[in-house]
Amino acid sequence: MTPHWLELAQQARKRIQPHLPEPTPLLRSAPLSEKTGLDIYLKLESRQPTGAYKVRPALNGILANLDEAKKRGVLTTSSGNFAQAVAWAAQRLGVHACIAMTDDTAPYKVERTRALGAEVVFCGTTFESRFETVKRLEKERGSLVLHGFDSVETIAGDGTIALELRAQLGEVTPFTVISPASGGGMISGIAATLAAIDPSRYEVLGFQPERGGAIVKSLHAGERTNVGKVHSIADALVASIPGERTFELIRKHCAGFECVSEERIQQALLHLVEEEKLWVEPGGAVSVAGLLSNKLRPSHRTVVCILSGGNLDPRILEQVLRAQ
Amino acid sequence: MTPHWLELAQQARKRIQPHLPEPTPLLRSAPLSEKTGLDIYLKLESRQPTGAYKVRPALNGILANLDEAKKRGVLTTSSGNFAQAVAWAAQRLGVHACIAMTDDTAPYKVERTRALGAEVVFCGTTFESRFETVKRLEKERGSLVLHGFDSVETIAGDGTIALELRAQLGEVTPFTVISPASGGGMISGIAATLAAIDPSRYEVLGFQPERGGAIVKSLHAGERTNVGKVHSIADALVASIPGERTFELIRKHCAGFECVSEERIQQALLHLVEEEKLWVEPGGAVSVAGLLSNKLRPSHRTVVCILSGGNLDPRILEQVLRAQ
Repeated sequence: MTPHWLELAQQARKRIQPHLPEPTPLLRSAPLSEKTGLDIYLKLESRQPTGAYKVRPALNGILANLDEAKKRGVLTTSSGNFAQAVAWAAQRLGVHACIAMTDDTAPYKVERTRALGAEVVFCGTTFESRFETVKRLEKERGSLVLHGFDSVETIAGDGTIALELRAQLGEVTPFTVISPASGGGMISGIAATLAAIDPSRYEVLGFQPERGGAIVKSLHAGERTNVGKVHSIADALVASIPGERTFELIRKHCAGFECVSEERIQQALLHLVEEEKLWVEPGGAVSVAGLLSNKLRPSHRTVVCILSGGNLDPRILEQVLRAQ
Repeated sequence: MTPHWLELAQQARKRIQPHLPEPTPLLRSAPLSEKTGLDIYLKLESRQPTGAYKVRPALNGILANLDEAKKRGVLTTSSGNFAQAVAWAAQRLGVHACIAMTDDTAPYKVERTRALGAEVVFCGTTFESRFETVKRLEKERGSLVLHGFDSVETIAGDGTIALELRAQLGEVTPFTVISPASGGGMISGIAATLAAIDPSRYEVLGFQPERGGAIVKSLHAGERTNVGKVHSIADALVASIPGERTFELIRKHCAGFECVSEERIQQALLHLVEEEKLWVEPGGAVSVAGLLSNKLRPSHRTVVCILSGGNLDPRILEQVLRAQ
């Protein structure tokens, strides 16, 4: 049976609302609106607790199975933002969290995850070894596994962004969402929810770093394609392969999907910092990079660029500024 | 005759509204609210064109005397933000702008001002030499002089922030405003406007860097006091002496005024960048520094910290991060 994504997103909203009582800000960008001749809005998921939208799926995943989570703990793997989000949500809900991180994870990300009370287990260096470690630990401990992008609860948690955007822009306003993507959780949650409301009124466009581009390559190939280890300045977008669920939802519900260059991501990052005065991480800037790339023309006049995260390493910004 | 500051602010709003159609965002800060037990909001003047609230007084000053400005040009002096704001407003309105800047002004600030079409005249290194140069040029050219903080048009332009806050928070909500201050233009504009509406419902608290502290020292002395050349990380707040008008308004309408240390400003800057994901300059962070200093307790539960500017030099942020 196909899940009813609108109902699932509404359920998720009810669950997470007590913990995230306010919608993240939606700011109109005067410079981007002027540049494009459209009405460009920025959705500041960077201002969520732990600095990324990931608290939505983390909370929904735990709350959907709270008794089980309390008994057996939760288990996941993440390159950074989902790790902190799960640690934060678990701490809040009195649940033990164990996070599998690759050996080459930046030390400050490990520290932040531990500072939120989570146990960190290292698991080699590949995207695959992360999931193997999760499987092993699941067997050993029986913990509740939270998938960073491909579970129903994760996608539904991400879908709450779509509900918030409708409330903020007015329920009758048609709009285009431009979203960064890695494994495809956020974008498929938004796209599936909006499609369940009214596919004629909403459009979702996706972008990912061309170093990687697992979803774009999978769409071209007509099947999920593994692109191997990904190295991009957008270090939150390093999934080697889209999820099974997310790939199907993207195929069905996204109107366009393209890659952006590292240079374009850097340009978008500088725009956000210097012109918009916002602290955004490179992965979060990929939506604006996509807009500025002109590779896909939005069908609607009102356009929302999701700034998915704000965990910018100041050293990365330094490098980008020096390279100017 | 005492100017009627509410009417003047309303006039200013009418003048500048076509050029600044949207209010700057007012975002609730969850971490600061949690930390203080109050409802803390951040007013993002950092997101104005040219990155600071100064476009309000710049536009109002020129528009109040547009014919004269068009004929004879405008003339001002500024350490940075007012220079860019006047250049931007003048360019928009087809007016020649000449800005007197000290010889030690950061080259990128000079470049940005020139890039907006203004003529830059260098004028020695002291706060006084700036005003002497303006007087000389006024005589030679007959240009319209715009004062950065002490003219009626400037203070009324700054007063539009108060009108915006009332509209954003609801007209019946009592609130406290915490504002950074240098020569006192912004804070006296806000305080005079709110006092003209209802002094019992609003409270304005001011903070400035203790390296400097011209207003605080003047209040203690009971008269305007010149503190000499000011060097602070908050490089937008370097006035040596408050204005005549601003000092009187502050005396009458501010409920408290204190200094904050350089360390406290750095701490506030890091909070804004790392926790709030906002790009704010040190001068703009002085309101949050004041809040975190606990030197003045707001009387109202709803508190607005004005983030007056966002022109943060990345090298300054680098230094602050390294010093941690």
